[in-house]
Amino acid sequence: MKATVYVTIKQSVLDPQGNAVQGALHSMGFEEVEKVRIGKYLELELNTSDKAEAEARVKAMCEKLLANTVIEDYRYELV
Amino acid sequence: MKATVYVTIKQSVLDPQGNAVQGALHSMGFEEVEKVRIGKYLELELNTSDKAEAEARVKAMCEKLLANTVIEDYRYELV
Repeated sequence: MKATVYVTIKQSVLDPQGNAVQGALHSMGFEEVEKVRIGKYLELELNTSDKAEAEARVKAMCEKLLANTVIEDYRYELV
Repeated sequence: MKATVYVTIKQSVLDPQGNAVQGALHSMGFEEVEKVRIGKYLELELNTSDKAEAEARVKAMCEKLLANTVIEDYRYELV
């Protein structure tokens, strides 16, 4: 089974990396870019076919390691 | 208009960061994780309503800045 995890910085938290990329895009002539937010995108291959169990395990992985839940949000999809 | 960009390391390229996360997950007891690949996930807010133009511009942003096309693949969605 494959899990896709998206980890993004919370809306209330400043995203300096996003601001830096926005500035670079502007300097390259892409003035239409009003906002950039950058996050992590993870693809996990899991050796399980039990979707409910995988769901709980991926949530635990996010809470314990993949996301810093103080400043980051996470969501995931199982396929 | 909002663009979502996914930048991932090419399958043929080693992903040390992914391997490191996989090792950490294993050490935390998540043995079912067989493979981890990590990429970037960007949300861009664009000040345009012309989807065709936005499509071309986002592709140019990826080619010029957001992805290192030597070792990374990219894909994007416009909503």
